[in-house]
Parts: sequence; structure tokens; C-alpha cells
Amino acid sequence: MKTLIIISHPEIKDSGTQAFLKGALRNLNGVTWHGLDTKYPDYQIDVAAEQKQLVAADRIIFQFPLYWYSSPALLKQWEDDVLTRNFTQVNQDGRLAGKQLGIVVTLGTAAKNYTVGGSEGVSISELMKPFQAVAKQAGMDFLPPFVVDRFKYQTAQQKAHLLFDYQNYVNNPHPATFKGQQDWVIERLRDKASREGDATRQTLLNLTIDQIEQNEAELASLKDQIEMIKRGDDE
Amino acid sequence: MKTLIIISHPEIKDSGTQAFLKGALRNLNGVTWHGLDTKYPDYQIDVAAEQKQLVAADRIIFQFPLYWYSSPALLKQWEDDVLTRNFTQVNQDGRLAGKQLGIVVTLGTAAKNYTVGGSEGVSISELMKPFQAVAKQAGMDFLPPFVVDRFKYQTAQQKAHLLFDYQNYVNNPHPATFKGQQDWVIERLRDKASREGDATRQTLLNLTIDQIEQNEAELASLKDQIEMIKRGDDE
Repeated sequence: MKTLIIISHPEIKDSGTQAFLKGALRNLNGVTWHGLDTKYPDYQIDVAAEQKQLVAADRIIFQFPLYWYSSPALLKQWEDDVLTRNFTQVNQDGRLAGKQLGIVVTLGTAAKNYTVGGSEGVSISELMKPFQAVAKQAGMDFLPPFVVDRFKYQTAQQKAHLLFDYQNYVNNPHPATFKGQQDWVIERLRDKASREGDATRQTLLNLTIDQIEQNEAELASLKDQIEMIKRGDDE
Repeated sequence: MKTLIIISHPEIKDSGTQAFLKGALRNLNGVTWHGLDTKYPDYQIDVAAEQKQLVAADRIIFQFPLYWYSSPALLKQWEDDVLTRNFTQVNQDGRLAGKQLGIVVTLGTAAKNYTVGGSEGVSISELMKPFQAVAKQAGMDFLPPFVVDRFKYQTAQQKAHLLFDYQNYVNNPHPATFKGQQDWVIERLRDKASREGDATRQTLLNLTIDQIEQNEAELASLKDQIEMIKRGDDE
């Protein structure tokens, strides 16, 4: 699966969050980090090149800090220029149809403020509606937005979770299901084991994979038994 | 009342809608038409000048065609640059507090498509949430958005209505109530009468004002009678 991450962040060089997220992608295959601010400081966007990249991707992600309840202006400029009607609309040429659109949005304040009655008074789901509407016109699957809040106040453990969750969001073909996450972890461990030079560590990795798969099989068996009990077929 | 209309429209020179709206303001006092695209073709916004204009206004209006379910990029750039935290936030310097924020949004397709189950699948109210959230942070009153759809298909009569409604939205201190609209019409007729050179036409205008005011008084009297009947006080 090929993922294209389009980043819009006017102060990306000073952003610890973006540096962390970029670092999280180091060992992932098929992921392109595409920063708009360094590439287009004068807002003159190369539409043909951008469209070509989009066509080659399976998952497209808009990644940005929330600026006045939306993306920074440069990503909007990118949308206005690159998403030409004929290229985008599913009822015309529709070159994006069937692809996925994800959003990685970083917040300076706590995510819990984004609710009715909260200090922001509006939810992230509501604020992402314009992007969902773009996905709809393009015939794309819109993924649940991935929200990172108050990164600099996170503990080391929280950051480790964030790293895993972000990799999952970016790289996992089925990021939203438990089964999808498990399969993705196994696949990544297999890849790691196959490239491991040290025989002992390779064995350890393979044992871990076996353990996860056994757990998976047991879980499936337990589920079956529960279903049988529910149906009154238990003899 | 001073109104500042901030227009963002990348193709404003070819826009019949914007030309019509600009023409509608010809005889109104206290209204400033401020086009961003001609002033800032290079996106280098004069923050100090913009903030000064904002402080001088009572009502601020963002006027734009809907581009990918939001404003064109230049207005977003304007927000990102001009609405600095200290200047904007009501809990800091809050220089916009108590002012009104309105939205005039023009649509290429019919407004009725903007609903769940419609071809756009999302409502204008939902799409305007980011602007409402800005108004909230700034301590501004957010006016119901003014929507212009399919201008070029409108009849002459529809355009006459649009002209009146737009003038009301831009210039009337209380645009949303019937009483507010009536008072505003009377005030404008008085202004016209005072500047009228021809005595016969001046008399006619004054008679019209009298008529409207009599109607208003009769309406108020009828309302009182209805209230009395409701309370069972009718003797």
C-alpha cells in the first residue's frame, strides 16, 4: 500500500510534533512525506506533479496543525489549485475514486475542549466536515481523523503509544479494526525477522509471531464457543 | 454603523455576482468594499493596516464563493496572518469583541443540494462552523450566513429581492427582525427624501413614509388586541 502524506505547517522547522511524526515513519515502506511549505514557499503549486503523486497513492493524508479551525492557508491553496473539477469529481474523470483520505490534525490545546460547552465549542468531527465533503465528491473513503493534542506535555509512554498509533494510521491497510491491527503487527514482525542478521534475535522474533498467532487462534476459538452458547447449541 | 466587507474571490473580475453585489452598495453610507485579491496578489498581507480597518468597523463580513467547502485560500491566509492571538482572543486584548461577523457565501450549485442526502451531503451551517468558532473566540456576534445561489439563473424579480436582502444584511443594524427591517426602510426613505430636489417627489416619499408608519402603528394595535383576547380581557 502506498501512502502520501501531505504536510502543511508554516513553522514546520520549529515543530517538535512534526519531527517526531516524521521519525516514526523511518522504517515503514511505501510512505512518502511531502511537505508543502518547503516546496512551495511562493504558493506557486505544480499542479501536474501533484496530481501525478496523488494518482500513484492508495491512501492520501492531509497533516497539519489546526489554524483557526481549519488547515493552514497553503493546504487550502493546494486544494483550490490541484483538485481541479475534472480530475477530482467521481462523476467526471474521478482519478481519486476508491482511494482513502485521512487527516492528521495536531492541536495546541487539549482535545477535550473541542465539544459543545467546551472552550472551543465545536468538535473536531464538525470542523473536518469540509474535508469529508471533498472525499465524497471524489468518491474516496474518508478515514476517522487522527488527532494529536498537546504533544509536548506527553509522557514517554504516551509518545510510544502515539508512535504505534500513527504508524498504524499511515501504513495499515485496515487501521480501524482489531484484526487489521494484529495482522499488520505480524506482517511488520515478519519483515523485521527476515532482515535480522543475528540468529538468536531472529528466533525470538519468530517465537513472538507464533505467540501472537496462537493468541489470535485461541481468541477466534473462544468467540466461536460464545456464539454457540448464545445460540443454545452447547452440548 | 460601519461595515467592512472583506472579499476573497480569485476570479473577481469575471464574476457577475460580485459586480452585482458591489453595485447594490452604491447608495449606502458607511460600507467599505475591501477586495483582497487585487490588494494582495502575492499573499503578503499588511497585518497592521488590516487590523486598523477591523477595529474601525462595527460589522465585519467575509464574502466569497465556496471553494471546496470553505473560503478560497487567500481569505484563510488573511485569517492566519491578521487574526493574531493577542489581537483576537476575547480573553486577551480582544479588539474585535462586541462586533458582528457575517458571511456572504455564493454557490455555483443550488443551495438545496447542501443537506444530508443531497448531492453535497453537508449543510452550509455545518460548513460555516469554523467561522462561527472564530467569532466565539473573538467575542463577536455571528450573524446567520447570507447565501446566494445560482445568481446567473435568477430572474429580474429575484435579483431585486437579492439586492434588498443584501443591503439589509450589510447595512441594517438589526437585519434579522421584521421591526428592524421596517425601521431601516423608513430611515433610508427619510434620507432619500431629505436629499430629493424635486418637491413633488419629496412629498410622495414623505407620504410613503407616513403610510408605512401608520401600517406599523395599526399592526401594533392589532397585536395588542389579539393579546387582550388571548388573556380573556375583551369587553
